[in-house]
Amino acid sequence: MKALEDKILKEGRVLPGNILKVDCFLNHQIDVSFLLEMGKEICALYKDVPVNKILTIETSGIPIAFAAAQFMNVPVVFAKKNKSGNISDDVYSSKVTSFTRNYSYDAVVSKDYLAPEDQVLVIDDFLAKGNALNGLMDIISQAGATLCGCVIAIEKGFQGGGDELRAKGIRVDSLAIIESMTEHSLEFRK
Amino acid sequence: MKALEDKILKEGRVLPGNILKVDCFLNHQIDVSFLLEMGKEICALYKDVPVNKILTIETSGIPIAFAAAQFMNVPVVFAKKNKSGNISDDVYSSKVTSFTRNYSYDAVVSKDYLAPEDQVLVIDDFLAKGNALNGLMDIISQAGATLCGCVIAIEKGFQGGGDELRAKGIRVDSLAIIESMTEHSLEFRK
Repeated sequence: MKALEDKILKEGRVLPGNILKVDCFLNHQIDVSFLLEMGKEICALYKDVPVNKILTIETSGIPIAFAAAQFMNVPVVFAKKNKSGNISDDVYSSKVTSFTRNYSYDAVVSKDYLAPEDQVLVIDDFLAKGNALNGLMDIISQAGATLCGCVIAIEKGFQGGGDELRAKGIRVDSLAIIESMTEHSLEFRK
Repeated sequence: MKALEDKILKEGRVLPGNILKVDCFLNHQIDVSFLLEMGKEICALYKDVPVNKILTIETSGIPIAFAAAQFMNVPVVFAKKNKSGNISDDVYSSKVTSFTRNYSYDAVVSKDYLAPEDQVLVIDDFLAKGNALNGLMDIISQAGATLCGCVIAIEKGFQGGGDELRAKGIRVDSLAIIESMTEHSLEFRK
Protein backbone atom coordinates (compact mmCIF):
# COMPACT_ATOMS: atom_id res chain seq x y z
CA MET A 1 0.00 0.00 0.00
CA LYS A 2 1.85 3.00 -1.37
CA ALA A 3 0.12 5.46 0.97
CA LEU A 4 1.32 3.49 4.00
CA GLU A 5 4.90 3.33 2.71
CA ASP A 6 4.82 7.09 2.16
CA LYS A 7 3.41 7.65 5.63
CA ILE A 8 6.08 5.47 7.27
CA LEU A 9 8.80 7.38 5.41
CA LYS A 10 7.29 10.74 6.37
CA GLU A 11 6.19 10.11 9.96
CA GLY A 12 8.02 7.01 11.21
CA ARG A 13 11.31 6.95 13.09
CA VAL A 14 13.80 4.12 13.40
CA LEU A 15 15.19 3.64 16.91
CA PRO A 16 18.12 1.49 18.00
CA GLY A 17 17.26 -2.22 18.28
CA ASN A 18 15.31 -2.50 15.00
CA ILE A 19 12.39 -0.55 16.45
CA LEU A 20 10.20 1.35 13.97
CA LYS A 21 8.28 3.98 15.88
CA VAL A 22 4.97 4.85 14.21
CA ASP A 23 3.12 5.93 17.32
CA CYS A 24 2.09 9.20 15.69
CA PHE A 25 -0.49 7.40 13.56
CA LEU A 26 -0.75 3.74 14.59
CA ASN A 27 0.35 2.82 18.12
CA HIS A 28 -0.43 5.71 20.42
CA GLN A 29 -2.05 8.49 18.41
CA ILE A 30 -4.39 7.00 15.81
CA ASP A 31 -4.89 8.70 12.46
CA VAL A 32 -8.46 7.49 12.12
CA SER A 33 -9.10 8.51 8.51
CA PHE A 34 -5.83 6.88 7.43
CA LEU A 35 -6.69 3.65 9.25
CA LEU A 36 -10.05 3.62 7.49
CA GLU A 37 -8.14 3.66 4.18
CA MET A 38 -6.13 0.68 5.44
CA GLY A 39 -9.40 -1.01 6.40
CA LYS A 40 -10.77 -0.53 2.86
CA GLU A 41 -7.57 -2.01 1.41
CA ILE A 42 -7.85 -5.08 3.66
CA CYS A 43 -11.51 -5.52 2.69
CA ALA A 44 -10.53 -5.41 -1.00
CA LEU A 45 -7.77 -8.02 -0.49
CA TYR A 46 -10.28 -10.47 1.02
CA LYS A 47 -13.35 -9.62 -1.05
CA ASP A 48 -13.54 -13.17 -2.45
CA VAL A 49 -12.99 -14.94 0.89
CA PRO A 50 -15.94 -15.80 3.16
CA VAL A 51 -14.44 -14.27 6.34
CA ASN A 52 -16.98 -14.10 9.17
CA LYS A 53 -14.73 -12.94 12.04
CA ILE A 54 -11.55 -10.93 12.56
CA LEU A 55 -9.13 -11.96 15.30
CA THR A 56 -6.52 -9.53 16.60
CA ILE A 57 -4.59 -9.01 19.84
CA GLU A 58 -4.58 -6.09 22.22
CA THR A 59 -3.65 -3.28 21.97
CA SER A 60 -2.50 -1.82 18.69
CA GLY A 61 -4.12 -4.41 16.46
CA ILE A 62 -7.57 -3.30 17.60
CA PRO A 63 -8.03 -0.05 15.60
CA ILE A 64 -6.83 -1.66 12.34
CA ALA A 65 -9.07 -4.68 12.93
CA PHE A 66 -12.00 -2.38 13.72
CA ALA A 67 -11.40 -0.39 10.53
CA ALA A 68 -11.30 -3.50 8.35
CA ALA A 69 -14.26 -5.10 10.13
CA GLN A 70 -16.59 -2.25 9.35
CA PHE A 71 -16.02 -2.62 5.61
CA MET A 72 -16.18 -6.43 5.80
CA ASN A 73 -19.25 -6.30 8.04
CA VAL A 74 -17.96 -8.84 10.59
CA PRO A 75 -17.27 -8.72 14.33
CA VAL A 76 -13.79 -8.42 15.86
CA VAL A 77 -12.46 -10.59 18.67
CA PHE A 78 -9.30 -9.41 20.37
CA ALA A 79 -7.07 -11.81 22.28
CA LYS A 80 -6.03 -10.56 25.69
CA LYS A 81 -2.48 -10.66 26.98
CA ASN A 82 -2.42 -12.49 30.27
CA LYS A 83 0.80 -12.18 32.20
CA SER A 84 -0.42 -13.81 35.39
CA GLY A 85 0.20 -17.39 34.28
CA ASN A 86 -3.27 -18.35 35.58
CA ILE A 87 -5.37 -19.69 32.73
CA SER A 88 -8.99 -20.66 33.29
CA ASP A 89 -10.74 -23.56 31.56
CA ASP A 90 -13.11 -21.39 29.57
CA VAL A 91 -10.45 -19.88 27.28
CA TYR A 92 -8.14 -20.93 24.49
CA SER A 93 -4.59 -19.81 25.23
CA SER A 94 -1.18 -19.82 23.62
CA LYS A 95 2.22 -18.73 24.98
CA VAL A 96 3.79 -15.82 23.06
CA THR A 97 7.20 -14.22 23.44
CA SER A 98 7.29 -10.60 22.29
CA PHE A 99 10.34 -9.88 20.13
CA THR A 100 10.16 -6.11 20.56
CA ARG A 101 9.61 -6.05 24.27
CA ASN A 102 11.43 -9.17 25.35
CA TYR A 103 8.72 -10.65 27.58
CA SER A 104 6.27 -13.52 27.47
CA TYR A 105 2.54 -13.69 27.95
CA ASP A 106 -0.39 -15.98 27.26
CA ALA A 107 -2.69 -14.83 24.45
CA VAL A 108 -6.19 -15.81 25.59
CA VAL A 109 -9.57 -15.89 23.85
CA SER A 110 -12.81 -16.95 25.50
CA LYS A 111 -14.23 -20.17 24.13
CA ASP A 112 -17.50 -18.28 23.67
CA TYR A 113 -16.09 -16.25 20.78
CA LEU A 114 -14.43 -18.75 18.45
CA ALA A 115 -16.20 -21.81 17.09
CA PRO A 116 -15.48 -24.54 14.50
CA GLU A 117 -17.71 -22.84 11.91
CA ASP A 118 -15.72 -19.57 12.07
CA GLN A 119 -13.74 -18.40 9.03
CA VAL A 120 -11.15 -16.17 10.64
CA LEU A 121 -8.96 -13.39 9.31
CA VAL A 122 -6.08 -12.49 11.64
CA ILE A 123 -5.02 -8.81 11.71
CA ASP A 124 -2.12 -7.26 13.58
CA ASP A 125 -0.04 -4.09 13.43
CA PHE A 126 3.50 -5.54 13.20
CA LEU A 127 5.08 -8.79 12.09
CA ALA A 128 8.71 -9.46 13.00
CA LYS A 129 9.47 -13.06 14.00
CA GLY A 130 5.77 -14.01 13.80
CA ASN A 131 5.39 -15.01 17.44
CA ALA A 132 2.10 -13.22 18.05
CA LEU A 133 0.66 -14.55 14.76
CA ASN A 134 1.69 -18.10 15.66
CA GLY A 135 -0.11 -17.72 18.99
CA LEU A 136 -3.29 -16.47 17.29
CA MET A 137 -3.17 -19.26 14.71
CA ASP A 138 -2.67 -21.79 17.50
CA ILE A 139 -5.82 -20.45 19.17
CA ILE A 140 -7.79 -20.71 15.89
CA SER A 141 -6.61 -24.29 15.58
CA GLN A 142 -7.61 -25.11 19.18
CA ALA A 143 -11.10 -23.77 18.40
CA GLY A 144 -11.31 -25.96 15.29
CA ALA A 145 -11.98 -22.79 13.27
CA THR A 146 -10.61 -22.06 9.78
CA LEU A 147 -7.79 -19.59 9.15
CA CYS A 148 -8.48 -17.51 6.03
CA GLY A 149 -5.22 -15.56 6.20
CA CYS A 150 -3.26 -12.92 8.06
CA VAL A 151 -3.09 -9.21 7.32
CA ILE A 152 -0.32 -7.14 8.84
CA ALA A 153 0.07 -3.39 8.64
CA ILE A 154 3.87 -3.36 8.74
CA GLU A 155 6.04 -6.44 8.22
CA LYS A 156 9.72 -6.32 9.07
CA GLY A 157 10.67 -8.50 6.12
CA PHE A 158 14.31 -8.73 7.19
CA GLN A 159 13.31 -10.59 10.35
CA GLY A 160 11.91 -13.47 8.33
CA GLY A 161 8.72 -14.28 10.22
CA GLY A 162 6.40 -13.51 7.30
CA ASP A 163 8.40 -15.53 4.77
CA GLU A 164 8.52 -18.53 7.13
CA LEU A 165 4.72 -18.49 7.34
CA ARG A 166 4.35 -18.10 3.56
CA ALA A 167 6.71 -21.06 3.06
CA LYS A 168 4.28 -23.12 5.14
CA GLY A 169 1.46 -22.16 2.76
CA ILE A 170 -0.18 -19.60 5.02
CA ARG A 171 -1.59 -16.54 3.30
CA VAL A 172 0.11 -13.44 4.75
CA ASP A 173 -0.67 -10.02 3.26
CA SER A 174 1.33 -7.11 4.61
CA LEU A 175 0.35 -3.59 3.65
CA ALA A 176 4.01 -2.56 3.83
CA ILE A 177 7.08 -4.83 3.98
CA ILE A 178 10.33 -3.30 5.16
CA GLU A 179 13.31 -4.96 3.49
CA SER A 180 15.97 -3.11 5.46
CA MET A 181 16.16 -0.24 7.88
CA THR A 182 18.74 1.77 9.79
CA GLU A 183 18.41 5.07 11.60
CA HIS A 184 19.23 6.78 8.31
CA SER A 185 17.56 4.69 5.63
CA LEU A 186 14.51 2.54 5.14
CA GLU A 187 13.74 0.37 2.12
CA PHE A 188 10.55 -1.45 1.23
CA ARG A 189 10.29 -4.78 -0.53
CA LYS A 190 9.53 -4.33 -4.22
CA MET B 1 -29.22 5.43 24.45
CA LYS B 2 -32.15 3.04 24.39
CA ALA B 3 -30.45 0.59 22.01
CA LEU B 4 -27.52 0.23 24.41
CA GLU B 5 -29.80 -0.35 27.39
CA ASP B 6 -31.63 -3.03 25.42
CA LYS B 7 -28.36 -4.65 24.40
CA ILE B 8 -27.08 -4.71 27.99
CA LEU B 9 -30.34 -6.32 29.15
CA LYS B 10 -30.22 -8.86 26.36
CA GLU B 11 -26.52 -9.74 26.21
CA GLY B 12 -24.93 -8.56 29.48
CA ARG B 13 -24.42 -10.66 32.59
CA VAL B 14 -23.97 -9.50 36.17
CA LEU B 15 -21.25 -11.34 38.07
CA PRO B 16 -20.53 -11.25 41.80
CA GLY B 17 -18.62 -8.14 42.90
CA ASN B 18 -20.66 -5.61 40.90
CA ILE B 19 -19.12 -6.77 37.64
CA LEU B 20 -21.21 -6.25 34.50
CA LYS B 21 -19.87 -8.55 31.80
CA VAL B 22 -20.47 -7.21 28.30
CA ASP B 23 -17.56 -8.88 26.61
CA CYS B 24 -19.80 -10.30 23.91
CA PHE B 25 -20.07 -6.88 22.25
CA LEU B 26 -17.74 -4.39 23.95
CA ASN B 27 -14.74 -5.79 25.84
CA HIS B 28 -13.54 -8.92 24.07
CA GLN B 29 -15.74 -9.53 21.05
CA ILE B 30 -16.64 -6.21 19.40
CA ASP B 31 -19.97 -5.73 17.67
CA VAL B 32 -18.56 -3.27 15.15
CA SER B 33 -21.83 -2.09 13.60
CA PHE B 34 -23.29 -1.47 17.05
CA LEU B 35 -20.22 0.48 18.15
CA LEU B 36 -20.57 2.62 15.04
CA GLU B 37 -24.10 3.50 16.21
CA MET B 38 -22.61 4.49 19.56
CA GLY B 39 -20.03 6.57 17.70
CA LYS B 40 -22.78 8.44 15.82
CA GLU B 41 -24.59 9.12 19.09
CA ILE B 42 -21.41 10.55 20.65
CA CYS B 43 -20.83 12.73 17.59
CA ALA B 44 -24.38 14.08 17.86
CA LEU B 45 -23.93 14.87 21.58
CA TYR B 46 -20.85 17.01 20.84
CA LYS B 47 -21.88 18.49 17.49
CA ASP B 48 -21.70 22.04 18.88
CA VAL B 49 -18.38 21.59 20.69
CA PRO B 50 -15.07 22.25 18.86
CA VAL B 51 -13.42 18.95 19.84
CA ASN B 52 -10.17 18.36 17.95
CA LYS B 53 -8.91 15.21 19.72
CA ILE B 54 -10.30 12.20 21.54
CA LEU B 55 -8.40 10.78 24.51
CA THR B 56 -9.08 7.26 25.76
CA ILE B 57 -7.16 4.55 27.59
CA GLU B 58 -6.19 1.07 26.52
CA THR B 59 -7.75 -1.39 25.90
CA SER B 60 -11.53 -1.35 25.75
CA GLY B 61 -11.92 2.39 25.30
CA ILE B 62 -10.15 2.23 21.94
CA PRO B 63 -12.92 0.80 19.70
CA ILE B 64 -15.54 3.24 21.04
CA ALA B 65 -13.15 6.16 20.66
CA PHE B 66 -12.30 5.01 17.13
CA ALA B 67 -15.99 4.78 16.23
CA ALA B 68 -16.75 8.27 17.54
CA ALA B 69 -13.60 9.79 16.02
CA GLN B 70 -14.52 8.81 12.49
CA PHE B 71 -17.81 10.71 12.68
CA MET B 72 -16.17 13.67 14.43
CA ASN B 73 -13.22 13.62 12.03
CA VAL B 74 -10.55 13.88 14.73
CA PRO B 75 -7.60 11.70 15.80
CA VAL B 76 -7.62 9.43 18.84
CA VAL B 77 -4.85 9.28 21.44
CA PHE B 78 -4.91 6.35 23.81
CA ALA B 79 -3.17 6.49 27.18
CA LYS B 80 -1.06 3.45 27.94
CA LYS B 81 -1.16 1.58 31.21
CA ASN B 82 2.34 1.39 32.63
CA LYS B 83 2.78 -0.98 35.51
CA SER B 84 6.56 -0.82 35.71
CA GLY B 85 6.72 2.33 37.83
CA ASN B 86 9.41 3.73 35.50
CA ILE B 87 8.16 6.96 33.94
CA SER B 88 10.25 8.79 31.36
CA ASP B 89 10.46 12.58 31.04
CA ASP B 90 8.76 12.72 27.66
CA VAL B 91 5.30 11.66 28.90
CA TYR B 92 2.49 13.00 31.02
CA SER B 93 1.47 10.46 33.64
CA SER B 94 -1.09 10.00 36.37
CA LYS B 95 -1.51 7.22 38.93
CA VAL B 96 -4.78 5.27 38.61
CA THR B 97 -6.24 2.54 40.82
CA SER B 98 -8.62 0.21 38.99
CA PHE B 99 -11.79 -0.45 40.95
CA THR B 100 -12.75 -3.57 39.02
CA ARG B 101 -9.39 -5.24 39.01
CA ASN B 102 -7.92 -3.97 42.25
CA TYR B 103 -4.51 -2.88 40.94
CA SER B 104 -2.70 0.36 40.22
CA TYR B 105 -0.92 1.64 37.15
CA ASP B 106 0.34 4.88 35.66
CA ALA B 107 -1.71 6.19 32.74
CA VAL B 108 0.85 7.71 30.36
CA VAL B 109 0.56 9.88 27.24
CA SER B 110 3.51 11.09 25.18
CA LYS B 111 4.01 14.85 25.35
CA ASP B 112 4.06 14.78 21.54
CA TYR B 113 0.32 14.07 21.36
CA LEU B 114 -1.33 16.55 23.71
CA ALA B 115 -0.76 20.30 23.48
CA PRO B 116 -2.22 23.45 25.08
CA GLU B 117 -4.32 24.19 21.98
CA ASP B 118 -6.08 20.80 22.13
CA GLN B 119 -9.82 20.62 22.85
CA VAL B 120 -10.16 17.13 24.21
CA LEU B 121 -13.10 14.77 24.54
CA VAL B 122 -12.43 11.86 26.88
CA ILE B 123 -14.09 8.52 26.02
CA ASP B 124 -14.06 5.30 28.03
CA ASP B 125 -16.08 2.10 28.25
CA PHE B 126 -16.96 2.05 31.96
CA LEU B 127 -17.29 4.58 34.77
CA ALA B 128 -17.51 3.31 38.35
CA LYS B 129 -15.58 5.40 40.89
CA GLY B 130 -14.12 7.62 38.16
CA ASN B 131 -10.49 6.76 38.81
CA ALA B 132 -9.45 6.27 35.19
CA LEU B 133 -11.31 9.46 34.14
CA ASN B 134 -9.59 11.43 36.87
CA GLY B 135 -6.24 10.18 35.61
CA LEU B 136 -7.05 11.20 32.02
CA MET B 137 -8.29 14.63 33.14
CA ASP B 138 -5.11 15.08 35.19
CA ILE B 139 -3.08 14.36 32.04
CA ILE B 140 -5.11 16.89 30.02
CA SER B 141 -4.48 19.44 32.74
CA GLN B 142 -0.72 18.71 32.78
CA ALA B 143 -0.67 19.31 29.02
CA GLY B 144 -2.47 22.64 29.48
CA ALA B 145 -5.16 21.38 27.08
CA THR B 146 -8.91 22.00 27.42
CA LEU B 147 -11.34 19.31 28.56
CA CYS B 148 -14.56 19.45 26.51
CA GLY B 149 -16.28 16.63 28.39
CA CYS B 150 -16.33 12.91 29.05
CA VAL B 151 -18.40 10.27 27.28
CA ILE B 152 -18.82 6.87 28.85
CA ALA B 153 -20.51 3.84 27.34
CA ILE B 154 -21.77 2.36 30.61
CA GLU B 155 -21.83 4.25 33.90
CA LYS B 156 -22.42 2.38 37.14
CA GLY B 157 -24.49 5.19 38.63
CA PHE B 158 -24.75 3.50 42.02
CA GLN B 159 -20.99 3.80 42.51
CA GLY B 160 -21.16 7.58 42.43
CA GLY B 161 -18.13 8.47 40.34
CA GLY B 162 -20.12 10.16 37.57
CA ASP B 163 -22.23 12.26 39.91
CA GLU B 164 -19.13 13.43 41.80
CA LEU B 165 -17.65 14.70 38.55
CA ARG B 166 -20.92 16.38 37.51
CA ALA B 167 -21.08 18.07 40.92
CA LYS B 168 -17.69 19.61 40.12
CA GLY B 169 -19.13 21.05 36.90
CA ILE B 170 -17.55 18.53 34.56
CA ARG B 171 -19.68 17.46 31.60
CA VAL B 172 -20.16 13.69 31.76
CA ASP B 173 -22.42 11.99 29.21
CA SER B 174 -23.05 8.29 29.68
CA LEU B 175 -24.84 6.33 26.98
CA ALA B 176 -26.35 4.08 29.66
CA ILE B 177 -26.44 4.66 33.42
CA ILE B 178 -27.12 1.68 35.65
CA GLU B 179 -28.97 2.70 38.79
CA SER B 180 -28.89 -0.70 40.45
CA MET B 181 -27.95 -4.23 39.58
CA THR B 182 -27.92 -7.68 41.07
CA GLU B 183 -27.47 -11.07 39.44
CA HIS B 184 -31.25 -11.12 38.86
CA SER B 185 -32.20 -7.53 38.06
CA LEU B 186 -30.76 -4.48 36.40
CA GLU B 187 -32.29 -1.00 36.38
CA PHE B 188 -31.27 2.05 34.39
CA ARG B 189 -31.46 5.64 35.57
CA LYS B 190 -34.54 7.37 34.16
